[in-house]
Amino acid sequence: MSLSDFDLTSRATFKHFTPVTLRFSDQDSMGHVNNVAFAAFVEAARTMLIQGLLNQFNHPDLDFILARVVIDYKQELHYPGTVDVGARLINLGSKSLTSGYGVFLDNTCIATAESVNVFYDMAMRKSVVPPEDVKVAVTSEISG
Amino acid sequence: MSLSDFDLTSRATFKHFTPVTLRFSDQDSMGHVNNVAFAAFVEAARTMLIQGLLNQFNHPDLDFILARVVIDYKQELHYPGTVDVGARLINLGSKSLTSGYGVFLDNTCIATAESVNVFYDMAMRKSVVPPEDVKVAVTSEISG
Amino acid sequence: MSLSDFDLTSRATFKHFTPVTLRFSDQDSMGHVNNVAFAAFVEAARTMLIQGLLNQFNHPDLDFILARVVIDYKQELHYPGTVDVGARLINLGSKSLTSGYGVFLDNTCIATAESVNVFYDMAMRKSVVPPEDVKVAVTSEISG
Amino acid sequence: MSLSDFDLTSRATFKHFTPVTLRFSDQDSMGHVNNVAFAAFVEAARTMLIQGLLNQFNHPDLDFILARVVIDYKQELHYPGTVDVGARLINLGSKSLTSGYGVFLDNTCIATAESVNVFYDMAMRKSVVPPEDVKVAVTSEISG
Repeated sequence: MSLSDFDLTSRATFKHFTPVTLRFSDQDSMGHVNNVAFAAFVEAARTMLIQGLLNQFNHPDLDFILARVVIDYKQELHYPGTVDVGARLINLGSKSLTSGYGVFLDNTCIATAESVNVFYDMAMRKSVVPPEDVKVAVTSEISG
Repeated sequence: MSLSDFDLTSRATFKHFTPVTLRFSDQDSMGHVNNVAFAAFVEAARTMLIQGLLNQFNHPDLDFILARVVIDYKQELHYPGTVDVGARLINLGSKSLTSGYGVFLDNTCIATAESVNVFYDMAMRKSVVPPEDVKVAVTSEISG
Repeated sequence: MSLSDFDLTSRATFKHFTPVTLRFSDQDSMGHVNNVAFAAFVEAARTMLIQGLLNQFNHPDLDFILARVVIDYKQELHYPGTVDVGARLINLGSKSLTSGYGVFLDNTCIATAESVNVFYDMAMRKSVVPPEDVKVAVTSEISG
Repeated sequence: MSLSDFDLTSRATFKHFTPVTLRFSDQDSMGHVNNVAFAAFVEAARTMLIQGLLNQFNHPDLDFILARVVIDYKQELHYPGTVDVGARLINLGSKSLTSGYGVFLDNTCIATAESVNVFYDMAMRKSVVPPEDVKVAVTSEISG
């Protein structure tokens, strides 16, 4: 599957949501929530999604290294409030995993995002093809 | 009244609480929530407290300028989670207002803080004695 | 032109550099500079680049709205230190402008980034085709 | 010695300075550098000061735990620019160390700050009286 198979602007695309409370210091000089803060919102959801995945297995040397983040800004966002960040797996590459995100204020999509993480063996210190059980779980989660 | 009249480590000291969700990026290299993040937590609560106070009145030129922040760190805090930041008015000076804060994880106090804001007239561009109705409301809130 | 015409990993691609000092709080729990901090580094350079462009003209209602940020992480980065963020214009679309960035520690490229900004008329409150003088300046800067 | 023995608003009080480049995202909705950012500026200087001190000795279990931060805001600060953060040791308590800071834009003092760190033995997991050689070095640095 690829990003075009998923509508990241729709809450229905996501099963997992991470609430993030806005902070006064997230605002910039225009009175909007600053674009940098969105990277922190997406990271909060990514950490939950990927840690939840890794915790299902016993691969102590396996890590995910963040290789790419893409954020598309669709609406202005204003303090105060709480956003819900939807997160889901999108695609399994040979040594990488793509995940997709939607930042929602109630039912309005404020931003979407995409991350690419690389499977990495901390003992060998290089990127690796993921173990079979991880492949199966990721594939199941993507199509689920 | 003064700070010593209030036990900022007790939830019972506060009527107003602002929830703040922790972010992965709040952590530092020791795996703790970094001290800088607490300044943002306290600010989130201060903004709610003082804006709530100012909105009761019609003094368009009156602003509060932050003059001092004190944070006392009492416990390590770890991601993920949500803290509740209690906020209350503490003391009214001739041209300033002291407020107190407690950062709680459930019932455990992680940090306390104090802020001093100065009443400022934006038209005259100088610090001022607050209007009588603000004095009355602040005094009532402090003793309440 | 498009992104593929420029090697963002080479300092030689850039004429404009913005130095950014690393902060202890930029680190995450793995002891690396956190991915979110890179969004702030890129923003520091983008603001300089685009403000420098806008200041050449007298279009008070013309603004640039950030629509997309892409960051590609290539190397780990560690505190302390100073990075140089190279910035340059990449492509002029009908109503948008793409810019490219390289984050360097000495001559090592740590990350590259791309931004898309939309030309926006603040009086009409909608995206617009940029004025002719802006088009000329941008086109000259891209090919320069 | 105590804080009142040092004029933190004067550059002459400091021998150590840490430059910190301002970031667009340091600004808040009033167009000032936000108070939270100052906590990061002070931390940048504190880390340099205390790490420089610890590196002189071979006490692998000795750490400094941040117990208190006080920041006094004296002037508005605006992006862009670079501030110099002066740092110095102020007082040695029985198990704690107080340090003082001045944030300068050229020769103008924008803010001052104070930190209290507690000497902590990571093996025993408790606060401790510092070793004699650390006491001597700190005392010499304070009076120097």
